[in-house]
Parts: sequence; C-alpha cells; structure tokens
Amino acid sequence: MDLPQDGRRRAFIEQVRPVVDCGRSAVKRVLGEELTVEADVIAEGHERIACALLHAPTGSESWITVPMTPLREDVWAATFVPGALGRHRYTVAAWLDAFATWRHKLARRTQRDDIMLALREGATLVRDAAGRARGPAQGALLAFAAALQSDAPLEERRQAALSAALRELMASVPDRSCETVYAPTLEVVVERTLARFGAWYELFPRSTAEPPARHGTLATAARRLSYVAAMGFDVVYLPPIHPIGVAHRKGRNNSLEAQPTDPGSPWAIGGPGGGHRSIHEELGTLEDFLRFRREAERLGIEVAIDIAFQCSPDHPYVTEHPQWFARRPDGSVQYAENPPKKYEDIYPLDFATAEWRDLWNELRDVVLFWVGQGVKVFRVDNPHTKPFELWRWLITNVQSRHPDTIFLSEAFSRPRVMHRLAKLGFSQSYTYFTWRTTKQELTDYFTELARQRDWFRPNLWPNTPDILPEHLQSGGRPAFMARAALAATLGASYGIYGAAFELLENTPREAGSEEYLDSEKYEIKSWDLEQEGSLKDYLRRLNAIRRENASLQSDETLTFRRIDNDQLLCYSKVSRDPKNVVLVVVNLDTQHEQSGFIDVPLDEWSLEATSRYFAHELLSGRRHEWQGPRAFVTLSPAECPACIFRIEERRSSSERDFDYFV
Amino acid sequence: MDLPQDGRRRAFIEQVRPVVDCGRSAVKRVLGEELTVEADVIAEGHERIACALLHAPTGSESWITVPMTPLREDVWAATFVPGALGRHRYTVAAWLDAFATWRHKLARRTQRDDIMLALREGATLVRDAAGRARGPAQGALLAFAAALQSDAPLEERRQAALSAALRELMASVPDRSCETVYAPTLEVVVERTLARFGAWYELFPRSTAEPPARHGTLATAARRLSYVAAMGFDVVYLPPIHPIGVAHRKGRNNSLEAQPTDPGSPWAIGGPGGGHRSIHEELGTLEDFLRFRREAERLGIEVAIDIAFQCSPDHPYVTEHPQWFARRPDGSVQYAENPPKKYEDIYPLDFATAEWRDLWNELRDVVLFWVGQGVKVFRVDNPHTKPFELWRWLITNVQSRHPDTIFLSEAFSRPRVMHRLAKLGFSQSYTYFTWRTTKQELTDYFTELARQRDWFRPNLWPNTPDILPEHLQSGGRPAFMARAALAATLGASYGIYGAAFELLENTPREAGSEEYLDSEKYEIKSWDLEQEGSLKDYLRRLNAIRRENASLQSDETLTFRRIDNDQLLCYSKVSRDPKNVVLVVVNLDTQHEQSGFIDVPLDEWSLEATSRYFAHELLSGRRHEWQGPRAFVTLSPAECPACIFRIEERRSSSERDFDYFV
Repeated sequence: MDLPQDGRRRAFIEQVRPVVDCGRSAVKRVLGEELTVEADVIAEGHERIACALLHAPTGSESWITVPMTPLREDVWAATFVPGALGRHRYTVAAWLDAFATWRHKLARRTQRDDIMLALREGATLVRDAAGRARGPAQGALLAFAAALQSDAPLEERRQAALSAALRELMASVPDRSCETVYAPTLEVVVERTLARFGAWYELFPRSTAEPPARHGTLATAARRLSYVAAMGFDVVYLPPIHPIGVAHRKGRNNSLEAQPTDPGSPWAIGGPGGGHRSIHEELGTLEDFLRFRREAERLGIEVAIDIAFQCSPDHPYVTEHPQWFARRPDGSVQYAENPPKKYEDIYPLDFATAEWRDLWNELRDVVLFWVGQGVKVFRVDNPHTKPFELWRWLITNVQSRHPDTIFLSEAFSRPRVMHRLAKLGFSQSYTYFTWRTTKQELTDYFTELARQRDWFRPNLWPNTPDILPEHLQSGGRPAFMARAALAATLGASYGIYGAAFELLENTPREAGSEEYLDSEKYEIKSWDLEQEGSLKDYLRRLNAIRRENASLQSDETLTFRRIDNDQLLCYSKVSRDPKNVVLVVVNLDTQHEQSGFIDVPLDEWSLEATSRYFAHELLSGRRHEWQGPRAFVTLSPAECPACIFRIEERRSSSERDFDYFV
Repeated sequence: MDLPQDGRRRAFIEQVRPVVDCGRSAVKRVLGEELTVEADVIAEGHERIACALLHAPTGSESWITVPMTPLREDVWAATFVPGALGRHRYTVAAWLDAFATWRHKLARRTQRDDIMLALREGATLVRDAAGRARGPAQGALLAFAAALQSDAPLEERRQAALSAALRELMASVPDRSCETVYAPTLEVVVERTLARFGAWYELFPRSTAEPPARHGTLATAARRLSYVAAMGFDVVYLPPIHPIGVAHRKGRNNSLEAQPTDPGSPWAIGGPGGGHRSIHEELGTLEDFLRFRREAERLGIEVAIDIAFQCSPDHPYVTEHPQWFARRPDGSVQYAENPPKKYEDIYPLDFATAEWRDLWNELRDVVLFWVGQGVKVFRVDNPHTKPFELWRWLITNVQSRHPDTIFLSEAFSRPRVMHRLAKLGFSQSYTYFTWRTTKQELTDYFTELARQRDWFRPNLWPNTPDILPEHLQSGGRPAFMARAALAATLGASYGIYGAAFELLENTPREAGSEEYLDSEKYEIKSWDLEQEGSLKDYLRRLNAIRRENASLQSDETLTFRRIDNDQLLCYSKVSRDPKNVVLVVVNLDTQHEQSGFIDVPLDEWSLEATSRYFAHELLSGRRHEWQGPRAFVTLSPAECPACIFRIEERRSSSERDFDYFV
C-alpha cells in the first residue's frame, strides 16, 4: 500500500448523510426544501477541527461553502436550500483548526511564562492568517498579531487573543491546505413542489361525451375539466391517448373477442394512425390535445399523460423497427405472455435487442416529444417490466433538459423493485397503500415509508382502473370516504381513478376479483356526475383542506398518535412556517360508530396542560374546545368516518386583556 | 447523461453485504471462518436471473466463482471460506438466465402448438450453450438440442427439456455476456485465529526478579513464563522494553521528582541506549529478548510488545530527526501537555511535519524490525493520538508482508474514534467493558458489539496498569472473580494486567481515583505469587474451559437469556462444529447470594421439553440434571459468583437400550 498523497490530511470524515446506496442514487428534495447534511468528523488526540459543507449545482466547477457546526459528539451538521431545480452535488470538507486548538489551550494556561510563549505562537498563527486574508480583515488580523506581542499588560493581550472578534476573523480565513474532502460527492435532485404535493384525478377522455353513448373526445374532456377543477384536483391524468390497435383487440370485460363497436384498451398502443406520438383519431388531433392542455392550465390543473412502452400488433414500430421485437421460432412476433395466459394484443419491446441504443433513444424522444407539447407530468405504466437502467438514463436525460418534469412510477411490484425504481429517478411511486387497511397495517406501512423519505415519495391511490380493492367492494360509501380521507391526509400526494371513485362504483367483475365489472379500460362509460351520494363535495372539501393546511403538503412530520380503539387510526402532521398542526382521526370500521380517547402531545405542540385550546374540525367546520392531554372523539361511518382537526391555540383572554385594566 | 456501456446488462445488484462503510474498509474474518455474502438482485418483469459470488485474494487477476442461491424474495446468498491469511476481494455478478426463463414458461404451456414452437426455441438456446461448453458437456448439450427437435413423442421431448440433467448442464455454461458486476469490489481481511480468540496476560519484566528488590530482567521474566503458561494464557504482553528517558523522569506515583533509584515509566521511551528498536539496558539485550520469546514459544505462549509512538527527551530521534518534533516559540521542543497539565517527560511526534513521509516510514520500520525479531502481536498504545490514516497505511503495509501480524488498539476514546481505528485495520480493540458493570449496561453494550462484529473484535480487560475500576476497589475477591468470568466468557479475547489482578490488588492512589496506588508504571513491584487467595487456580480453570469449549472461542452466537433477577446476568454461546452449548450465569452482586429462574431455550438447542438433560457446571465440575424450560440457580459471591454450564443431552436411556430388548 502506497503512502497517501498527503499524510497531513488528518481530519477523518465518514457517514456523510443523507445518502442513498453509498451515493449511487440521489437524495430527493423539492424546490425550497432544506437539506441538512450531517457527517461524523474526527481527528486524533485533542486536535480541534473545522468542517464545511460544500455544495454546487451538478456540472458547476466551484463549491459553495457553508460552515458546519457541531451537532453532538463528533457529529457536524449544516443546512442548505438548493437554489434551482435539477441536480446538485454536496460533500463535506474538514481540516485541523490550529487556531482553535491553540485558543483552547491558551484559555487553560495558568503560568505567566507559558502564556507569554503561547502569545508568541498565536501571533504567528494570526500573521499567517493575515497572509490569506483580503481587505479590512487583513489589516485587522495584522493589528491583532501586533497586539498579542505588544507591551500591553499580559492579561490584556490574553483577552485580545481569546476575543470573539479574533476568533471570527480567524474562522473567516481558515488554513485549508491540509483539508480532507469526503469522497464520493453525493447528489440531491431538486424537483417542483408538485413532485411532493398534489391531488391527482385519472380521467378517460372517451367517457366524457354528452350524450354519453358517443365516443368522447379531447374536446368533450376539456369541458369536463371545470368539474375536476371544482373538486380541487391539481393534476388530471389521462390514460394513453394514442391510436388503439385493432389486431386481437380486447372486448368488454377483457374478452378475447371484440365486437366491431368495442373501443379497445387504450394501453394497446399503435395503429394505422400512428404510435406513441400520435393522438387516437376518435379523440381528436394534436391541436385538440393542446387546447385541452391550455384549458387545464387556465383552470390551474396540470395534465399528466401515460407512458406505456408497449405496442399493439398494428404499431408502426412493428414494421419500421422489426429488430425491436423478439421473434418466435416460426418468424412471428413474440406477443406478451405469462403461460398459459397469452396477451396477443400486446407486443412487448425486446430490450435484449442488439439495437438497444436506437430503441432507448426513441423512447426518450417520445417523452421529449410530449414535453414539447407542454406535458411535464408523466405517469409511467409498469416501469418494472422494462430495464432498470433505461429509467435511470431516460429520467436523468429528460430532467437534465427539463428539470420541471415529474415521473410517477406505477411500480406495483415487489418492495425491492418498487424501491429501486424510486432510487433510479422516479419522482413519485404508487404504493401498497391500496391494500393496507387495518390500523396495524397502515401504521407499519407508513412508519416504513417514513424511513424512506429521502428517496421515495408515495402517491396514494385508493383505486385505479386495474384495482377495485376488496374493502371498497364491501364497505360502501363509508369505505370510500375513509379511504379518500386517509389518502388525502396520510399522503401529500394522492390520486383517484375518477368518476368511478366519487360515484362509488364498487361492483367487481366476479366474486374474489379486484377488477371492475364492465371496466372502463375496455368500454366507454357513461357517468352520471350529479348522481345522489356523489363524493364530489367531500373531495372538494378534502382538497381545500389540503391547500389550506401547510402540514398536509408534506409527509415529513407524519406521526401516529395513541388512541385507545383499534378501529380508530390517529395521526398528526405539523408544519413550522407557517405553523400548522393537524390531527386526523379515521374510523376504519365501516359498519359501526367508534369512540376513543386521543393522547394529545401537548408539550410537542407547546400547549399548556391547564389551558383550553381549539380543535377545529375542518370537514364539518365545527370548533371543539379541548383541555389537557386526553380528548374524546366519536366517529359515525354513516355520517363521516374522518375528522381532520386543526389544533389552534386559544387566544388567552383574562382580565388583563380588558382595555382599561391597569 | 450518456447511454450506459451496454444497456443489455439488465440484472441489477445492490446492497452486497457484509460491507463496512460502502467498502472503504474491510470486513474481518479469521482463517477458516466462513463469509456469507448476500445481495439484493433483481431484473425487470418475469426474467429469471442467475447470480454468482466472485472472490479472489487481493492482487489476483482472476475470480473464483461460487453460484449464489435465492435466500428469500430478491435476495441471493453464497458462502466461501477465504483460503489464506491476508486480504481477499469479493463481489457479485448477475445475469439474465434465458434458459431458466424459457424453462419456467415451458412448464406452464398447455397448447400443443405452443410447446412445439417452444421446443424449437429451447433447442436454439441449448445449441448456443453447446458452443460455450467443452468436453463431454458439449456432446451432451448437442444431444439434448437434437432430442428437443427429434421425432420422439412431444411429451417425451418436453420431459427432456424440463429434465434436471439439462438444467444442470445449462447452468454449467451460463451466457454471461451481458452480466452485471457489482462495483465497488469489497474486501475481507483474514487474520490468524488469535485475532479472535486469546487470553492475554500483561507482565512487567522488571518486576520478576528474585529476590524481588532487584530490577528484573528479560531473563527473570522468562522464568516467570511457566507461571503464566500454567494459568493457560495465550499471549504475554510486555509494556515497552526500550530504554527509559532520564530527563523529567517521573517518580513513584507519577510524582514530578524522581529519586535516583526510580526506574521511570516504560512509556517514556528512549535514552542514550537507544530508542524504539533497542532494549532497556537493565532488562538485558536483544539476545535476552529472543531467548524470552523462544521460551514463551516453547510454552505455547505468544509474545506481544507495546507500540508507543512517543519519545522521552532523551530519545535519539530528538537529535537525529529534530524536524519530527514541534518547537515552542523559544526554540525548545514541545512537550506533551493538556493545559494546565504538562508532561515534560514526553515529546509527542509532530505529525504535521513536512517530513511526514520519513516519519511514517520509520514508524512502519520499527514494527517491521520487531517482526524481524519474531514478534507477531502488537498492542498499540494510544493509537487515537496519532493520525488515523497512519494506522490504515501502517497496518495494511505490515500485514501485506506479514499477514500473521495482529494489532490490538488501546483506543480508550470516544465511540466513533474507537470504531474508526477498528475499521482502519486494527485486529482487536480495548473496549468500554472495563466500565460496564450492571446487567443493563452489560446487555446493552454487548448487544451493540454484536452489531459491529463484522469489523470490531473486542478484547475485554477487567483492569490495566492505568485502570483500577471502582467496582474492583470496592467489590473484593468476588468482584475480581465475576469480572474475570465475564471477560473470559463474554469475550473470545480477554486480558488481565497480571499479578495485580490475580493477587487482588485494589488500592487506589486516592479516593475517587481509578489509578493504582504505588503503580507498577513507576516502580518495581514485588508480587507474592503464592499469596493466599490468589486467583491463579481460578484463572487456570477459566482458561481451560475456554480451550475445551468451542463456543467460547467466538462472540458470534452470544445471546442474553432471561433470568428473573436483576443481579444475575445470563447468556449463552453455541458452536455448531463441534456442537457445544454453554450457558453462563454471573452474580453481579458482590455482597449477597442471589437466585433466579433461567429461561432455557429448549427448542433452539434441540432439547425435548419432557426429557432430562445435563447442565454440567465447569468451574465446580458438578453435573446438574435439569428438565423443562426453567432452571433454578443460586450463586453465592463468597463461594463463586459465576456458573459456566455446558448443556449436554442426556444419552436417552430406556428399556429399548437394553441389550436383549427385541
């Protein structure tokens, strides 16, 4: 083993954090969010050290330096707020602080001779520092150096040496010639706030026509936007809007034989009208899409489209790029299959192709094409069936040009696969929330998610066109209300497969199935949006509460609270600036009224045990006056299975508040 | 972001473990110990994967390949035993196993046409594999390829395709052209068993003379070795044996004024007679040392010497290498100090020197010099006061030439410092055991140590010449016995500062001090080894028990067991091969008899709840017959505060064992 480059680099740095997989993946933040970096930093013996956080936009040559402060024994910390979207690097530098070591010793010296010698030594350190200084600091340091060795009384000189002024001056021109810099540098990817906080509404444009029997278009869908906007959703997500294949088209309820009038599944992409860059003829034109997007923007909604990298047998790729598809031994193109099941309406792309470079570039270009049409939000279909490295490259590539793009991963797969996709670059991910229903399950799962918060942003979906979970089938309206409240308050990001959700659609294709009967995936649906019992007003209220309460716009502070009833789930979120404390209770029992005592963490929320405070229930608007650390709640599923309390300090009122009190 | 080198490398590997600090430090093992490597390995969709552990001695160009097997969902594992002392690299390779994917699908295919086509596809895979094969495997594969497309009945061909024989043949010639190899490669450092398992005895040679008033020598110390060997110690560790400085020599009880006859502290190294490569004149010559070492070897004991990189003012370095020492402003050499305390008998080396390369090389050469004299075990004094990188370089450097060298770190410092030294290369470390005394403290500390077992090997010392802990001062003989039993059974490595320990020396310099009165560090001691109450027989028994019970030779399986008395600590260690189960109970109360019920983990130890078994108490030799999961023990501190039970299955004896039973 060779000698190190410079053995005088004696500060030792380890465990720089946050870090994902040793720095092989980036930490996630949204614009304006802080990143607090901690590191274990030590040096031998009694040597004092100084540390700095170094950060810079990725690609920049020079570091921005932030002094770190000791957090606890041998741990240092500093915080920065990355100033722009995109990737930023960060690391930690540390060096021996000879002046601090010297100062620490001086303060403890008692013998006159020792102090005299020490002041001579200190004067040298200060003069050296003056050599590194510019402007007035240089003069000030030289003056201090002279003062340390002047004829002034010893105690006066000692006080000058120990002064805060000299300490600050010296800290401003550290000798970093023997600094250690931690390797590797780490990375944080900064995305828009929407990557963290947003309410999504999935909408099939073809089901928006009036009269409803007809095939809807992007024009009729645009008229539906005001309905979505009125409910307060931030994102309208459209399943694929591209031409739909005819060969082996699936009929209603996923039947193998389609009737001539069956519209097919939007995920069977590609036909004579084009592929992933084209608009399905029956939906309209690219112009119609742009009009739809502009109408959404006018209403304050972003449009998300579906990225489903698979082809129908009629996709232009099949003839234009035959090398992108695997062949069966008889020369026919390999369709999707999971034997004995066959999906002959889908040709998967063959990522083992020797021409993978062309294929990857084309897929990236498809995304860039839609970015060019003003789309910045992409929901990616089944990303776990394409190579992991494709996503790392594609998302990094697209975001390096368009750091405002957001990618949601539909990774309904095993935990390590779901997590890997998040680490490789997806802004958000679908989660197992869809199947977590009991108090224990929800508590465990969200406790686990909290540990992953540096790299995994959950987007909670109570339902999707593919998943009508058992609890929605059996729980009726209370189940829908409870799941919406959970999704909207446990998750800063959540989404619903719309119309089906607010209209309480809950009939499965067959007993034991989690698929919808007469699924919208295979047919045009007619939704009666004014139907009795619709949850549209409830969802509007939930979304308004989310917008009005900063604490619900992040998952960082989610904390489960004790409540003495296993059917009641209780949790809180808190924001600092603006200060906002929200306490949620959800009745998980869709059949019975449930009551319980909440443990209110008075200390944590700076509430006095002896004073009253308000628990402002935001769904009903009722304001409760509570006192002390125990609060009683009753939730009736028939009425509303959720309470969202904003905890408000009561303006203290006493005789001293009376105007004429003296 | 550029395209990856080959996007067809679709297996994804993460979390290869064990790993220390992302691979920046090595995992530790001793020769013969297994290393089980696990990794998270995934690929997209339904692709099957294959994984291999790759390992090789560091420096070797080619890998040894060990197939990995799935351990649980998406986790693969394989085990290897590094074949030699020194450093070995390891990593994981993974690739898509096209044949396994194909085979999995074939097994599920039901339609005749599909099976026919699949067999054609399979034949191609098998023929390709034959191209990679050599010898008989090639012929066998070609025969299978032909069979898959022969005229034989379809089911027969399908069975051949699914046969274990073909599966094994295919697995023997995998297509690794698109394999992923995990980076960075990780490292394991393999040391001698003594790095894990050994009993140490610290001995001041100068206190071994007879009559005791004289200055002992290495010759008199050599005669003391049979006494040490009789107690069963593996290592005799000598404080520094180098010339002792005269300038500012410390007198008895660390007094500033030494009397002319005071021998000084062995740690004030260097005088007219030489420095770190010389032998103190009063101890003898290098020849005497070699004789001492050979006598130790004859008795089965290894000699450890002290590496204390510091100098007395009389050390030859001070004049020969003045640039290795810092100067005070008046030109004098900077002595050690911790203001207002001064240690004028010690000149620390100045690691900030511009000539650090010469200094480092010299320090390394000091160690190599003693290796040249047959010393392979080094106890390093205060390593935390020298640069961390020095140790990484020095230990790696010495061990690369002499992989049988062992370094014990006297890192009585903060946890992150102690841990860092272990990670940088020290084979073993002193620990906080010396100060952990209550049941909770011991349980917590050893639970923490268990988590560090891949890189931290504890060596437990109840006392040292610097530390006479409070509990030994007040607890009398029972405290010494309990602490010895704890050290010898909680730790595969332990040590005592000898004579003082077995002779129950327990007078502190003053109340509240943990220093010895009339410390051997500053004077020649006269020990009456035959003194009444000596623990020599007890220590001999403890060391014999350690040698006879494999489970006590490792800390890997240490498990605390429930016992319903807070003064009783109960734990077990188990070895597989040879099978050995040891259950230890120690009474931490030095004043009172204590009793309690132990929870015996019958299932874990394959004992039947209804049968009797033996608890063979190894200190007393008494054999108890126990039955069921609860066992009662009583420990009297006056008699013996520890029980070391070997749990032995009772040879089942029933009428069926009777010779003539039919």
